[in-house]
Amino acid sequence: MPSNFTTNMRFKFSILAIFLEVLIIVLFGIFVRYENNQNITKDKLFLYPFFQDVHVMIFVGFGFLMTFLKKYGFSSVGINMLIAAFGLQWGVLMQGFWHMKAQKINVGIKSMINADFSTATVLISFGAVLGKTSPIQMLIMTILEITIFSCNEHLVLNILQATDTGASMTIHAFGAYFGLAAARILYRPGLKEGHKNEGSAYHSDMFAMIGTLFLWLFWPSFNSAIADPAYLQQRAIINTYFSLAASTLTAFAFSSLVEHRGKLDMVHIQNATLAGGVAVGSCADMDIYPFGAMLIGSVAGLVSVIGFKFLTPFFSSKLKIQDTCGVHNLHGLPGLLGGLASIIAAAARVKLRDTASPSAPMQAAALGCTIGIALIGGAFAGLVLNLPFLGQAPDENCFDDSVYWEVPEEERELAGQFRDSGDHRTLNINV
Amino acid sequence: MPSNFTTNMRFKFSILAIFLEVLIIVLFGIFVRYENNQNITKDKLFLYPFFQDVHVMIFVGFGFLMTFLKKYGFSSVGINMLIAAFGLQWGVLMQGFWHMKAQKINVGIKSMINADFSTATVLISFGAVLGKTSPIQMLIMTILEITIFSCNEHLVLNILQATDTGASMTIHAFGAYFGLAAARILYRPGLKEGHKNEGSAYHSDMFAMIGTLFLWLFWPSFNSAIADPAYLQQRAIINTYFSLAASTLTAFAFSSLVEHRGKLDMVHIQNATLAGGVAVGSCADMDIYPFGAMLIGSVAGLVSVIGFKFLTPFFSSKLKIQDTCGVHNLHGLPGLLGGLASIIAAAARVKLRDTASPSAPMQAAALGCTIGIALIGGAFAGLVLNLPFLGQAPDENCFDDSVYWEVPEEERELAGQFRDSGDHRTLNINV
Amino acid sequence: MPSNFTTNMRFKFSILAIFLEVLIIVLFGIFVRYENNQNITKDKLFLYPFFQDVHVMIFVGFGFLMTFLKKYGFSSVGINMLIAAFGLQWGVLMQGFWHMKAQKINVGIKSMINADFSTATVLISFGAVLGKTSPIQMLIMTILEITIFSCNEHLVLNILQATDTGASMTIHAFGAYFGLAAARILYRPGLKEGHKNEGSAYHSDMFAMIGTLFLWLFWPSFNSAIADPAYLQQRAIINTYFSLAASTLTAFAFSSLVEHRGKLDMVHIQNATLAGGVAVGSCADMDIYPFGAMLIGSVAGLVSVIGFKFLTPFFSSKLKIQDTCGVHNLHGLPGLLGGLASIIAAAARVKLRDTASPSAPMQAAALGCTIGIALIGGAFAGLVLNLPFLGQAPDENCFDDSVYWEVPEEERELAGQFRDSGDHRTLNINV
Repeated sequence: MPSNFTTNMRFKFSILAIFLEVLIIVLFGIFVRYENNQNITKDKLFLYPFFQDVHVMIFVGFGFLMTFLKKYGFSSVGINMLIAAFGLQWGVLMQGFWHMKAQKINVGIKSMINADFSTATVLISFGAVLGKTSPIQMLIMTILEITIFSCNEHLVLNILQATDTGASMTIHAFGAYFGLAAARILYRPGLKEGHKNEGSAYHSDMFAMIGTLFLWLFWPSFNSAIADPAYLQQRAIINTYFSLAASTLTAFAFSSLVEHRGKLDMVHIQNATLAGGVAVGSCADMDIYPFGAMLIGSVAGLVSVIGFKFLTPFFSSKLKIQDTCGVHNLHGLPGLLGGLASIIAAAARVKLRDTASPSAPMQAAALGCTIGIALIGGAFAGLVLNLPFLGQAPDENCFDDSVYWEVPEEERELAGQFRDSGDHRTLNINV
Repeated sequence: MPSNFTTNMRFKFSILAIFLEVLIIVLFGIFVRYENNQNITKDKLFLYPFFQDVHVMIFVGFGFLMTFLKKYGFSSVGINMLIAAFGLQWGVLMQGFWHMKAQKINVGIKSMINADFSTATVLISFGAVLGKTSPIQMLIMTILEITIFSCNEHLVLNILQATDTGASMTIHAFGAYFGLAAARILYRPGLKEGHKNEGSAYHSDMFAMIGTLFLWLFWPSFNSAIADPAYLQQRAIINTYFSLAASTLTAFAFSSLVEHRGKLDMVHIQNATLAGGVAVGSCADMDIYPFGAMLIGSVAGLVSVIGFKFLTPFFSSKLKIQDTCGVHNLHGLPGLLGGLASIIAAAARVKLRDTASPSAPMQAAALGCTIGIALIGGAFAGLVLNLPFLGQAPDENCFDDSVYWEVPEEERELAGQFRDSGDHRTLNINV
Repeated sequence: MPSNFTTNMRFKFSILAIFLEVLIIVLFGIFVRYENNQNITKDKLFLYPFFQDVHVMIFVGFGFLMTFLKKYGFSSVGINMLIAAFGLQWGVLMQGFWHMKAQKINVGIKSMINADFSTATVLISFGAVLGKTSPIQMLIMTILEITIFSCNEHLVLNILQATDTGASMTIHAFGAYFGLAAARILYRPGLKEGHKNEGSAYHSDMFAMIGTLFLWLFWPSFNSAIADPAYLQQRAIINTYFSLAASTLTAFAFSSLVEHRGKLDMVHIQNATLAGGVAVGSCADMDIYPFGAMLIGSVAGLVSVIGFKFLTPFFSSKLKIQDTCGVHNLHGLPGLLGGLASIIAAAARVKLRDTASPSAPMQAAALGCTIGIALIGGAFAGLVLNLPFLGQAPDENCFDDSVYWEVPEEERELAGQFRDSGDHRTLNINV
């Protein structure tokens, strides 16, 4: 086992995590204050249910969505939690630095929503490298990605003045291409032919549906949480609701179309049904009519299934990008689609507000910048993560919780005996 | 295998689903618009958390409640999602056609709540035929049932002017009797002696509890979402909260009473604890006092357990109605009970609003119409679903995901070896 | 089998449960009314989403958190539901008796929140005796504990006028020490060397994470639900959000530090990540700055992991307290820490409101009273539960659902064969 494959995290992981928490507490002590108290009435707390919906998406939605791997559930839901809990603290600082007043970052419900949003980018990228990275690597990736994300977000929203209410571009496309670039750098030739653990089991697919459903259900909150004023917020809710419903239908339809004997594939149902939420994001609060939202959703569901069926194998074999969860199909392509839709809508002078329309060139610039920065940033992150001593697992231990987790004994054995099928034993079943 | 048992869905399912989505998009383009923008303030979004609670009930609650079958989890949660996502789009149209303004259907949070409601009827009926129908059949049933439901709802609420705030009659009783009538037509003599897959496993019962709990928790939102003004809404919340608590206690008590050695039965806990939510629905916003709500709930919990224990076997053997999930005990009987309670409350001149009471004869007429229309509609739906070529599974493949889903290989094998073949085999494992 | 180990609950459990429900309905009929209708506007329903978050914590959070045991999931989530559904009714009465107006208890959203809160104490104590008590015992414990809790709560908040917004002391420390005292009395020497069922399986650990996450996510609602006015509520939300995030990081860090080869332990991740929510409770709405909340959370995560690693074994072997879920580490120690933090903050004259500060001596008195009353009350409850004929299971049947539940046949067999029975074996099944 080469020296860069010491998966023993003792001290290394703990010291890094404690150091980061201490650093954050010091920075919070210096910079972070509560939002001005005088102005807060019950009205201000009006956003709190939206925040909670987003919060559930981040921790339950993303966490359980990734539990589809049969032996990697602890890491999926656990490391997801670690990334998000650390990332939201880091995100408050990184996003806050762009909007300081009197040298202070003032936090309220809206900053909590934005902090949760910032972690979504890392969780998306996590999906691309799932099963192949250590918790230490993921902490480092969180720092890098949220920092770069915050800069890109500032560029898109404040400098380019583009609109991206549901963040198709700044979160979904960004997170996907960042993760894909990192996965390219972290390419493992040893996994070229696949890995015995890289598949689902019946129950792990059921757990993943918990993630899918909570993402699906609360996506209207995600896309509308920062829309303002109320009628735009309602429009974002309605558009997302219908876009998701439409993408669910096309995801089912095309899953059955591309599979053997017309069967449905859980991978598509778990992921492509969500593509409508991603794709309608940039246009969420535009006056695209409910049927427009459904058109976007329908195409997104279709594109996502096609991506899983044909593009992921191509990425893996030809581009040397091993995208474990297929984030390109759930976040990358639909994110691109969302950006394109916003360009078209802007060009068609669809009114965002009653007085102003977004500008098509600025939307296009936003999309271009986001992809470019994500690819460069992700590649840089991949290089950093490739440093030895970060606890990366050797190929044969990928997609296996027991490298970084205490796993219940008998279960592990049993799982080994019955799932991996018989290396050193005799199993006789006469029925 | 007879020709009406071609379970190969390829093209058939996909073409139907795509056709329906295209049709819906066209109809939405012609008829559906956003609610008038000018009037929407943050106050209007006040209903959004109620909507989200109902939304969770529809997709997570109903979906996971049906995952109790050991080999039918993908279908339960997956086809539930398909029905609901398609049904809500269809429901917006069917319900909207009764309330058009200037030839347009205007959608807002309240129409989204109502659209979700309309799908509940189909999900209830789905429970009666669970394991025995194909996704193609369920799409067709969704069209038929939501169409008929919308007409009955209009009849009950607008023509008869009955009150049914929590929809004990129009949703629960309707969905149950519609499903039972369909199940009667779809009767399978081959399943008379039961089926090896028609049972739960330890983990599938745990997944089902996710469904139970989210239904139980958010039922106050379901019963109060369309109550108006605020004090009636609060009353509906309180009544439902206490009715559910009471039905939980009697469900536990009677489960232990009717079972061997006083043990508790998961079927009762998963279902009868919810009966209080169903039964208090029609009276939810009436001034029945908290103890009145508890009385209704207590009786509902009792009736539901008794139904599971004695009525379901009778239905199956004598009436030739194979009610997979026992929807008669969760939605049928408690729905009837709710209708009866509303008749009694109206007769006793319980005030609904400070100035007006519902009319007992109209409540009775509403209950009668609902059951009648549900039975006729369900029988008609059953006849349509019996058409050949709709992908129905042969008896031996009922309650088995692998007919319509790609199921993880090893798991299927293992499950087969250990769960099914228990009868005539010798199993040797030498480790 | 001695006569006090008749686990047959038939009649006994049913009669007790029905008697209690009838008693409650009578008492509700006499005492409980709806909150005054005239004043309720949509503003009043503003608390409803907070209520629903707390509601999810009680039933899904606590319920699934305890499903980590491999053969005790039905009881964990089922008996949790029973306790909570009964307890909330009892809690309305017990808390209401202290605040009657014109001999009536008026219920509204806030009383529902408080009723749910009161059940939390029992659910915490349930964790200490999990796997070793019967449903009959738990109903009795619920009566006793909620009654005593309501008195202590009245003492702390109304007589001592202490502040405990997030209830670190009155709920968490109280529930933990009550449960530990009861567990001491119910000590089972036969379980000294552990029990073959007292461990987790891979999937049961996944189910437990559902509980963990919903507790974690909605804890800000728990700590802020009764804070008033809005800016204090927002402060409680923010403080809890950051405290939890910080405790998650230290829980991960110290879990890896104390475990073999730096691996993470699911027990710590499931529990210690929540310690920040408990510990920040008493100070939740004080002006402790975000970094102050993080400091409290960081220490809580650390203390909790250390407790699990070193204190729980010590409690079990030396103090004869078998704390199944380690509630001392999740609720006891962090609850103490929360009380201490509130004393320090009060002493440092941290402003709670702009004009008043809590008093350090009163905070100290509140902490002392709470612990004392909890210990005495718990010991008394333990003595009552030790009465024969309450259906307690013999040692060998502890931690096993099949004593009180109908468990799916094949599963039980299989689970027994593959999970319990050792390593170097030949397994022969002839059916």
